[in-house]
Amino acid sequence: MEKILKGKEVADALKQRLKQEMEEFHKKNITPNLTIVIVGDRPDSAAYIKGAVKRCSEIGIECNVRELPKDLGQDKFVDVIQKLNDDEKVNGIMIMRPLPPQISENVVKYEIYPAKDVDCFSPVNLSKVMSGEEGGFAPCTPSAVMEILHHYGIDPRGKKAVIIGRSMVVGRPLAMMLLKENATITVCHTKTLNLAEEAGRAEILIAAAGKAKMVKRNMVKEGAVVIDVGINFDENGRMCGDVDFDEISQVAGMITPVPGGVGAVTSTILAKHVIDACKIQKNL
Amino acid sequence: MEKILKGKEVADALKQRLKQEMEEFHKKNITPNLTIVIVGDRPDSAAYIKGAVKRCSEIGIECNVRELPKDLGQDKFVDVIQKLNDDEKVNGIMIMRPLPPQISENVVKYEIYPAKDVDCFSPVNLSKVMSGEEGGFAPCTPSAVMEILHHYGIDPRGKKAVIIGRSMVVGRPLAMMLLKENATITVCHTKTLNLAEEAGRAEILIAAAGKAKMVKRNMVKEGAVVIDVGINFDENGRMCGDVDFDEISQVAGMITPVPGGVGAVTSTILAKHVIDACKIQKNL
Repeated sequence: MEKILKGKEVADALKQRLKQEMEEFHKKNITPNLTIVIVGDRPDSAAYIKGAVKRCSEIGIECNVRELPKDLGQDKFVDVIQKLNDDEKVNGIMIMRPLPPQISENVVKYEIYPAKDVDCFSPVNLSKVMSGEEGGFAPCTPSAVMEILHHYGIDPRGKKAVIIGRSMVVGRPLAMMLLKENATITVCHTKTLNLAEEAGRAEILIAAAGKAKMVKRNMVKEGAVVIDVGINFDENGRMCGDVDFDEISQVAGMITPVPGGVGAVTSTILAKHVIDACKIQKNL
Repeated sequence: MEKILKGKEVADALKQRLKQEMEEFHKKNITPNLTIVIVGDRPDSAAYIKGAVKRCSEIGIECNVRELPKDLGQDKFVDVIQKLNDDEKVNGIMIMRPLPPQISENVVKYEIYPAKDVDCFSPVNLSKVMSGEEGGFAPCTPSAVMEILHHYGIDPRGKKAVIIGRSMVVGRPLAMMLLKENATITVCHTKTLNLAEEAGRAEILIAAAGKAKMVKRNMVKEGAVVIDVGINFDENGRMCGDVDFDEISQVAGMITPVPGGVGAVTSTILAKHVIDACKIQKNL
């Protein structure tokens, strides 16, 4: 049994499966297309986009990046989304968030076609994550967590899963996805009292708080599976997760590193969603 | 401090607030309208509808019941919903579930206008419950639970809340609503191991499993707030909840009875949602 859950290994295995699926597409002369929409430039988005473009290209997915001016009005933004919705060549649309303040996410999220919404921006896809209904797209990051668990044969059924963090992009959807796979779920957050006690009961502990090295020895049960979703930078400017890896890797049964853990899987999940979207749209 | 949390008391207090709001409507000569749609006749629905009609009438809401033949086709059903959507006199639409097998809930749920969807059938309202966004309608039963907590001054913030049951009408939305109010939430279900241990840690325990008297002494912490959402019938044909009331009322700090607990509040919540829907539609 492996102790360090390697994101690259999970991503590579998924990539191989996707490449096999792509062979069917090639026979039919179909190239799936992902269009990434970004308003203004944010350095953190740039790194994400670079990774997504690279991964898509490796798999054979066409990937366009639409960079829009940072002062673009909401109506113009909606026009862009609607054109992409109607463009038959576009199979998946990913909108980089957060959007600038003049564009209200709570308004524009209704515009994207659910069938092209590969990162769960649409309320329709969100509701499917909540109800466990098939045929939608969950957000890429919690999907990456589930992919890691599946790859390493970790079945959440009947397990005590504790999620630290309740964001709409990770904590809440992941809670619903683990619940669907029959885990007993607990969601902790900044208002949780006795976080160490709650986290310390987890057989599967998910750290998605966005706070560098906040998961310490007293918060982890011996032998627990620890999945670190955090991407932070420590006092020396080095990338680190929400988990104090040096300390926790001594006690955890399995643990994802940062970098090289969850973050290494998300862009391949995105590619999978684009392929799935293309299949649905082309009735393949 | 009261020990028995009385649904009637909560409902009556809410009813008084709603009647005050109605005075503003009367001045403007507006009568909110709820239309309940039922396909075929189900005895359990009949009791619910009777209660809803009575409560609406007491508050001054017009309530129509549309009984449709039990073999109605899905297209015809959708026609009915679309007509109600477009009918300016109708402010709230409640569709009794479950629907008969020829009508797919996963298809027709997209048809109801979210702004008229007073019991959270629409995925748009469901996504708002998940994200904690204002301006939507949560399902009436979990809203009734929250109303009881608020009425009796029980603040979920920082509290350990355990929900037994993961249905889409109670367990999951209630988990999200308690999370929004800063509880640390745990969702248990039929695949949970050590249910007694999990439930026994709750400061607020919600029983929504749909199994008569399944919550026993060993599952409740001394002094806990116990909310019983179950409506079942015991071996003598008497209505009872999911909680063994005689046993648990000895140890709980506060407890809702069945009947006379959550069930006594839902129809007043429904009336509130109709009034809220009317306000939104009329820009009041």
